[in-house]
Amino acid sequence: MTLSPADTIAQLTALLGANGVIGDPDRMGAYINEPRKRFHQKAAAVSLPASVEQVQAIVRWANENSVGLIPQGGNTGLVGAQVPLRGDEVIVSLQKLDRIRAIDTAAGTMTSEAGTILENAHKAAEAEGMIFPLWLASQGSARIGGLLSSNAGGVNVLAYGNARELTMGVEAVLADGRLYRGLNSLKKDNTGYDLKDLLVGAEGTLGIITAATLKLFPKPEDYETALISITGPEAALTLFQHLRERIGSRLNAFEIVPRIGLDMQLRHGDLDRDPSAGPSPWYALIEVSRMKGGAPGALQTAIEAAFAEGLLDNAVFAESLEDRTRMWAFREQMSEVQSKEGASIKHDVSVPIAAVPQLIAEGSAAALRLVPGIRPVPFGHMGDGNIHFNFSQPVGADPKAFMASADEILHEAIYEIVLRLGGSVSAEHGIGQLKVDLLKQVKDPVALDMMRAIKMALDPKGILNPGKMLRAGP
Amino acid sequence: MTLSPADTIAQLTALLGANGVIGDPDRMGAYINEPRKRFHQKAAAVSLPASVEQVQAIVRWANENSVGLIPQGGNTGLVGAQVPLRGDEVIVSLQKLDRIRAIDTAAGTMTSEAGTILENAHKAAEAEGMIFPLWLASQGSARIGGLLSSNAGGVNVLAYGNARELTMGVEAVLADGRLYRGLNSLKKDNTGYDLKDLLVGAEGTLGIITAATLKLFPKPEDYETALISITGPEAALTLFQHLRERIGSRLNAFEIVPRIGLDMQLRHGDLDRDPSAGPSPWYALIEVSRMKGGAPGALQTAIEAAFAEGLLDNAVFAESLEDRTRMWAFREQMSEVQSKEGASIKHDVSVPIAAVPQLIAEGSAAALRLVPGIRPVPFGHMGDGNIHFNFSQPVGADPKAFMASADEILHEAIYEIVLRLGGSVSAEHGIGQLKVDLLKQVKDPVALDMMRAIKMALDPKGILNPGKMLRAGP
Repeated sequence: MTLSPADTIAQLTALLGANGVIGDPDRMGAYINEPRKRFHQKAAAVSLPASVEQVQAIVRWANENSVGLIPQGGNTGLVGAQVPLRGDEVIVSLQKLDRIRAIDTAAGTMTSEAGTILENAHKAAEAEGMIFPLWLASQGSARIGGLLSSNAGGVNVLAYGNARELTMGVEAVLADGRLYRGLNSLKKDNTGYDLKDLLVGAEGTLGIITAATLKLFPKPEDYETALISITGPEAALTLFQHLRERIGSRLNAFEIVPRIGLDMQLRHGDLDRDPSAGPSPWYALIEVSRMKGGAPGALQTAIEAAFAEGLLDNAVFAESLEDRTRMWAFREQMSEVQSKEGASIKHDVSVPIAAVPQLIAEGSAAALRLVPGIRPVPFGHMGDGNIHFNFSQPVGADPKAFMASADEILHEAIYEIVLRLGGSVSAEHGIGQLKVDLLKQVKDPVALDMMRAIKMALDPKGILNPGKMLRAGP
Repeated sequence: MTLSPADTIAQLTALLGANGVIGDPDRMGAYINEPRKRFHQKAAAVSLPASVEQVQAIVRWANENSVGLIPQGGNTGLVGAQVPLRGDEVIVSLQKLDRIRAIDTAAGTMTSEAGTILENAHKAAEAEGMIFPLWLASQGSARIGGLLSSNAGGVNVLAYGNARELTMGVEAVLADGRLYRGLNSLKKDNTGYDLKDLLVGAEGTLGIITAATLKLFPKPEDYETALISITGPEAALTLFQHLRERIGSRLNAFEIVPRIGLDMQLRHGDLDRDPSAGPSPWYALIEVSRMKGGAPGALQTAIEAAFAEGLLDNAVFAESLEDRTRMWAFREQMSEVQSKEGASIKHDVSVPIAAVPQLIAEGSAAALRLVPGIRPVPFGHMGDGNIHFNFSQPVGADPKAFMASADEILHEAIYEIVLRLGGSVSAEHGIGQLKVDLLKQVKDPVALDMMRAIKMALDPKGILNPGKMLRAGP
């Protein structure tokens, strides 16, 4: 980069006006500090374009001057994709592009700009009697562009798919500043390569998503939610298959949490009371949607049949919105409550769903062998084969010493098991800067070469989120 | 191409053995003649690799010698993607790679080689109590590799998605002969660009798919099928919304056929008897799946509620497998029966679903203005916004004179309407060689440039299905 910091700010200000640029490092905190505080790097500037044309102007300028750009939404990502790596990049915050351009209830689509906060997208859909079924813990601050760029998952992937599957088309600024106009509301369109799915999940390395056409669904009339006491992941797998046969695509969520998770929540007072039927080695949180005019009780009937077959130990059915909220809080506060138990080591991994029990058994055993006293807390999206395989430090251990001695060896052990089972080392959080070296080690080298060739074809100067997902050079 | 035909055959024979090569033009008919007999071009040879390694050997050889290769499955495609364009290409038939490598019922996946006939994939899934829900008229000869390369649709896209959405991972030979090992059974995997979706639907221009991991679903216990008498597309749209709210994702199919379609079928004796409740301007064929243990009658209840609201005129519910088969034959034989009414002009188009009534009204009116006496026969996947907008010649007209005078102007008129409504000029059949010029006219030039850049990056010599989807050069 040849531009001086002062020139960078002056030129960006000329493009965007004074309100469109933050040049003072003291005012950049909200843009360069991310949720887990793992990455600590400055930025040359933060730009705040107020229109698609301004995004194009920034990218044209960056391309001419070989400036690295980092697209950013709500800054909630967990792998450092949205924060600086080198220190000379310009952050492009999409937060001012937060307009919902159109909702078409007949077509079941919403066209939203990249900066719309997920919760606002939810509200806009619900105002029209529809749902946008992407739900995750950070929905109050995560923004559409970032959710798509990271192909976010969440708790309803089972029924509705991840962000990629919920996106019909995108609009994006390419590395040369041109606008790819890929918004559309078509369920079928076989006119060329699937550019939409290439841009979704690319972490801003192939283009800056400025807007998207999202799928809306009819709002279910009601949900049926149950918290199941169950012996372990094997039993959970059998129960899952049982429910898939009976409930099919209306099964919205099948999440599992081990007993230690409930203990932690009750210990820290994060729940007003125990949502379960009492002590159990494991719990499964299950939710089914009921469409308009449908008969209630589908989940209860299916669970009762499973109970008769001995597939579970006990069940509590939510009888009020309060019950349902408490059951979901139990699941959704897992990460938060774990942070109150000292240091933790986390893995966002997936395996073919039938291999989940083996993953949990082998991973927990390996960790206990390597770090006596360590507390495995594997929980998450059983129905997607996606487990947040987290570990809390041994009780009373020194957090720093624990991390220093255990972090690396635990990662190695867990990823070895995951890869042996045909799994993924990043199920939903992505690569960013956190896993870029890991990706190079574990990904098929042919796939990596294809990715590099595509990156080089679409961003030959490497200005879009440089060093994320793929390291520059061989 | 510098190799002589004799050298081409000799070198391929050296690679594959005599049984792996057809060099005699008289024996190539099944490979170079496609269903609609629109393309008439010879091939240099037909190669029949018997293993993935042999596919790699062919591609390496072709890359060294700059020979164009045409991947081919069941040769059922409708746009000429799978047959020669220049006359000097070598066809690579995948038909010998027809092994189902694995079925995992717990994971809900099948790993199949590219040459497996769709019907055989259906049978293999059903033998395990599962379904592979890609159903289309050519399933007795279409093969997995071609279905994926053309991102095939069919009659159950509404509930299960098209071929892309039914594919979890692919294995493909790249232009340099290397093997991309992208088979996986993961519902979530955010480790890099979405290469799977780039290869699916690329019509063999970016790689030759040799195998795929496909999604299986629990077999519904039963289906509920109804043939509805309805005033027209507007009423069909209202009925569709009504059912989506009540039946959600269990709504498998919502197809429409105009009265003239039924008349044609009855005239030619393609149905043993009228499956409908009697004469009606339009019909809707609707199917719902019932999962294990679910209460029967969901469709009937929803249709009765719709009838009470005046949304339809009459309904027949299938009471036997025979009834269901007849209703589906009515829909699926539409193309075939139309061919008995003389020449026809066809358009496989899609629009946002809410625009289907406008498409049909404007398209029919425009055609009648341009060609008095022409018979519009728009039918198909209303629930996907995908209409096969076909026209039969006026009764008694000369087929050749009709095609000569009407073909071009009708295409222009229909595509103008489709594009004005935000639609696609190829909803499910693809581009191939038939629509390559059309694509250049109607597609966003930025998108075309992205496609060209990707093609150049992954196949710099242009050996993979040359001239299909994208024309070489600017």
